[in-house]
Amino acid sequence: MNTFGRNFRVQIFGESHGEAIGVVVDGVKAGIPLAKEDFSKDILRRKSGAKGTTPRIEADEPEILSGVFEGHTTGAPIAIIFRNTNTRSSDYKELLDVPRPGHADWTASVKWNGFNDPRGGGHFSGRLTLPLVAAGVIAKKQCGFTFHADLVEIGGETDKDKWPDLLDATAKEGDSLGGIVECHVEGVPAGLGEPFFDSVESLISHAVFSIPGVRGIEFGDGFAAARLHGSDHNDPLVATKKPVLAKNGAGGVNGGITNGAPIVFRVAFKPTSSIAKTQKTLNIKTGEMVDLNVKGRHDVCFALRTPVIVESVAAIVLAGL
Amino acid sequence: MNTFGRNFRVQIFGESHGEAIGVVVDGVKAGIPLAKEDFSKDILRRKSGAKGTTPRIEADEPEILSGVFEGHTTGAPIAIIFRNTNTRSSDYKELLDVPRPGHADWTASVKWNGFNDPRGGGHFSGRLTLPLVAAGVIAKKQCGFTFHADLVEIGGETDKDKWPDLLDATAKEGDSLGGIVECHVEGVPAGLGEPFFDSVESLISHAVFSIPGVRGIEFGDGFAAARLHGSDHNDPLVATKKPVLAKNGAGGVNGGITNGAPIVFRVAFKPTSSIAKTQKTLNIKTGEMVDLNVKGRHDVCFALRTPVIVESVAAIVLAGL
Amino acid sequence: MNTFGRNFRVQIFGESHGEAIGVVVDGVKAGIPLAKEDFSKDILRRKSGAKGTTPRIEADEPEILSGVFEGHTTGAPIAIIFRNTNTRSSDYKELLDVPRPGHADWTASVKWNGFNDPRGGGHFSGRLTLPLVAAGVIAKKQCGFTFHADLVEIGGETDKDKWPDLLDATAKEGDSLGGIVECHVEGVPAGLGEPFFDSVESLISHAVFSIPGVRGIEFGDGFAAARLHGSDHNDPLVATKKPVLAKNGAGGVNGGITNGAPIVFRVAFKPTSSIAKTQKTLNIKTGEMVDLNVKGRHDVCFALRTPVIVESVAAIVLAGL
Amino acid sequence: MNTFGRNFRVQIFGESHGEAIGVVVDGVKAGIPLAKEDFSKDILRRKSGAKGTTPRIEADEPEILSGVFEGHTTGAPIAIIFRNTNTRSSDYKELLDVPRPGHADWTASVKWNGFNDPRGGGHFSGRLTLPLVAAGVIAKKQCGFTFHADLVEIGGETDKDKWPDLLDATAKEGDSLGGIVECHVEGVPAGLGEPFFDSVESLISHAVFSIPGVRGIEFGDGFAAARLHGSDHNDPLVATKKPVLAKNGAGGVNGGITNGAPIVFRVAFKPTSSIAKTQKTLNIKTGEMVDLNVKGRHDVCFALRTPVIVESVAAIVLAGL
Repeated sequence: MNTFGRNFRVQIFGESHGEAIGVVVDGVKAGIPLAKEDFSKDILRRKSGAKGTTPRIEADEPEILSGVFEGHTTGAPIAIIFRNTNTRSSDYKELLDVPRPGHADWTASVKWNGFNDPRGGGHFSGRLTLPLVAAGVIAKKQCGFTFHADLVEIGGETDKDKWPDLLDATAKEGDSLGGIVECHVEGVPAGLGEPFFDSVESLISHAVFSIPGVRGIEFGDGFAAARLHGSDHNDPLVATKKPVLAKNGAGGVNGGITNGAPIVFRVAFKPTSSIAKTQKTLNIKTGEMVDLNVKGRHDVCFALRTPVIVESVAAIVLAGL
Repeated sequence: MNTFGRNFRVQIFGESHGEAIGVVVDGVKAGIPLAKEDFSKDILRRKSGAKGTTPRIEADEPEILSGVFEGHTTGAPIAIIFRNTNTRSSDYKELLDVPRPGHADWTASVKWNGFNDPRGGGHFSGRLTLPLVAAGVIAKKQCGFTFHADLVEIGGETDKDKWPDLLDATAKEGDSLGGIVECHVEGVPAGLGEPFFDSVESLISHAVFSIPGVRGIEFGDGFAAARLHGSDHNDPLVATKKPVLAKNGAGGVNGGITNGAPIVFRVAFKPTSSIAKTQKTLNIKTGEMVDLNVKGRHDVCFALRTPVIVESVAAIVLAGL
Repeated sequence: MNTFGRNFRVQIFGESHGEAIGVVVDGVKAGIPLAKEDFSKDILRRKSGAKGTTPRIEADEPEILSGVFEGHTTGAPIAIIFRNTNTRSSDYKELLDVPRPGHADWTASVKWNGFNDPRGGGHFSGRLTLPLVAAGVIAKKQCGFTFHADLVEIGGETDKDKWPDLLDATAKEGDSLGGIVECHVEGVPAGLGEPFFDSVESLISHAVFSIPGVRGIEFGDGFAAARLHGSDHNDPLVATKKPVLAKNGAGGVNGGITNGAPIVFRVAFKPTSSIAKTQKTLNIKTGEMVDLNVKGRHDVCFALRTPVIVESVAAIVLAGL
Repeated sequence: MNTFGRNFRVQIFGESHGEAIGVVVDGVKAGIPLAKEDFSKDILRRKSGAKGTTPRIEADEPEILSGVFEGHTTGAPIAIIFRNTNTRSSDYKELLDVPRPGHADWTASVKWNGFNDPRGGGHFSGRLTLPLVAAGVIAKKQCGFTFHADLVEIGGETDKDKWPDLLDATAKEGDSLGGIVECHVEGVPAGLGEPFFDSVESLISHAVFSIPGVRGIEFGDGFAAARLHGSDHNDPLVATKKPVLAKNGAGGVNGGITNGAPIVFRVAFKPTSSIAKTQKTLNIKTGEMVDLNVKGRHDVCFALRTPVIVESVAAIVLAGL
């Protein structure tokens, strides 16, 4: 199912090279000011065109079909669509025989008995993160918290000055790079979330792993916590005007419930699966190993475009708590 | 809400020092052989008593109240309870004033306006993982896959021979250790899961973060994937009797859908929050910083008891797909 | 699935002649005073023993396992069980061959491939309405509205003075009677519910049809509305201190949303299916038509016991809005 | 929330006089043949224009945005929109002060603090049943059962020959009429549904009450069952090639589970709320009682257009079982 959320609910739909992609956002409070322009900034942050990203440019113009009246949300579901304009669906038949490594070509075909739309990954395309960003814009308004996600590492390199050269070199090899995004959510009051299944970490990780290409998530000290002593990892309360935490090794959550410190988590993105470089893989029709050079327009490092997506899904979670 | 799952659904309840803890498992197929004895092995794996674990010993005897008739599941919901016998609820009043760092004492109290049961962490206690394990036993039977979770690291140490000394030394300091669990699920056919929100990684991470003390999760190459090139991380199909993957950097999932390779993920557990060692923290009543030495019986490294819990929540996910 | 509700959630379990039946109530607010005694009145209203009801008497003593601490709800899920004591499971094997007309014996067996617990209807038993009543007690406290359900008709007879004779005569014939329950919910503010799928009528009817033996439900003017003119059925607002409705043909709901008038609905219960009178039916093993006289202890008119159940399921709905 | 269904899920959106209305249908099996033309027949059955229905004519042309590729469903969510063309939004401001009796004008405004779109009922409009019908077309294909719903009564009159005169006379008075729809679903195997909360009656009634204007629903003998003896209402099995029921007083469902007989239910629709005839009602701004003559184009008896809607929501339920 392509739905997320209990009280703030997002339903996405669409295919990379179909008519349109879109989202229905339900559970939005009435009376929130909302105009088309509110989407521009976040949509632009996700856009391609910069170094390391695909040259496929889409207009990415949101069309609000419902749920907004006289500049405010009405309480009814908000449907937003984005027409696909820059589609090229000619070359997909090849990948029916030679599924691209790292893509969902093969698993989608197994799951849906070959009826899946294979053009550009179809419904599995990263293009579907655009409606997620649109939903995120509404979610951010509803919860009112501040979201800062940033790419902190590309291909293991944390020094941003070195990224342009790294991207250039990798592009030249026809290869790709992954990255790590760190997200801080500020202004979250203590007491949100539930113990166990609806813990804040459960919900955020659920939403984050819905972004194509995520390989890991960690909160606060994360995997490093497993190497610390309890006396180093524990966050004691300290005396100020109101109780606050001395440090934030837990990433803002204790027992699944927010503790008033910023929610902090990091997300690992794999390198782009589509690479020009030759890969040996299987032709599933002939049963023979073949050389594959993935054609088309691809990001060298799609993680560059993901910080706003990470913010968006976190906002979708928090708007519903 | 303390429920997880759409078609295989688990509802847990109970408090550490209350009458009983338990679980209702709904969506179980009719006709699965099930007896009390089937729970013994996994419950034993979770049990304390070994080096590095708490000396609080509970009988952990499952009482099956419903859903089983003449040795088989009936299709109706299965309710299982565990009576709490070895409870000590005298000393909790102290921690109302001085919430233990790293615990949910304070967030639970904020969330529930001070009406939460504070004894031993109440509903937030790790003891609630016992019903999760019971549900996992049923889930494993229903899905029929093979689960192998193992602790691969304690306090940064991967050499198991060195763990006993490490645990002893840490116990002597009144401190605690975290650890990393690696889980392999074998026998999973290709085609399970959904794109986006109900991706296998989304569902498993959701369930895993419901285990108290989890700080991170990664699938396949995980965070390391963010440092690889696409040509190294991609898993090409190779020709055998049926298409299989040459390697498993994706951890068994592409585009949210299983690809027939084992599902592989690693979970980072924080060090036990309750430590004997002195911690400076806040008395929220007086507003003064105080010395806290957490009393009671605690695990030096509760991660030692978690592999079976990790298997259980993964099984709960997979039984519903 | 045996779960109902999004934000106030009820999970029932158990079988008529099993160990215990019970309910887990999740989403309960913290701080509601709750003691065992609070359940007595409603449980007594559901109880058998009066004229027209079965002589099977159960203790119906609720055992609260979790979610209550020092006399108040904690915010954690509340599990309540009722031990089955007065069970007789000897004679069920007969009805495996000759399913009782009007019962779920046959459909349960088809659904669960013969693994269902057949004793006394197993999980399909009306005895499962007891945990519903327990959940209703909590729900009533949470929403704070006033519920009045009453039996207004037995076997087509609306004059209550004539009911004792009617019940006696029907019992003598070994037959049974149905009835109609009318429920009023007062104190409901305007603005609850949603348009379309989560309309108040949708949710209440969903919950009401989960009571075994319900054949129909109508709100306000109900089926009679279909025979009225719009000018008679419409409820105009009138001027008082605040706008109120001049009449209540809509039963308190417009467009799925409460309008501040009492919610009014009527529920039709079928006659008890188990009758002593001879019925011709099929022996599904032999394929021959046989005479069936249902043995055991049964209500002549189980509708007599249902008003409190109707109130309970309505409360379960409204506690979640 | 405007979502219905667990495994076959429908999300509707839109307003009567907004950009577009639509639906996202999720959980559709891959490989079902589906073309725009498949929607024509059912959309036409819902259309206005016949005697007794509104003269507002919309093109009602479905635009399939996703989920269909080369003439077959892909397994991905299917989004369908209908542009609103024939909108008139000038006169709505009047009804902000004088909410129309029987409509959601007032409750919508209370619920959404006056931010609801009031034009033509906004999101509460019966026009939203058009996407329900579109979803129903897909649902019917997925479940493969046969649906026959028919209007059996208008304003209490069951003789269809007398309906034209009745409609004319009522229109002349500026008044409106209700009606009763009877629906038969054939080809349903035994064993679908669940006991209690997910009983077939619970789910169908939930879906049916999401249709604006429904006042009651009954299954099989319905309210009449409450006036029968058990010996008359019970449906015994009889011997044929496979066990079948001698009669269908239960309407095809026992214990919440289908029994293989047709599912039969009747739905009561209220008379159209919008009438030209003068109604005394409240001006909520001035607090004075005023004369209201509802303007616009309305059905004398909107129940005439509902049989296909009733079929659709039943199909939506059954496609998910």
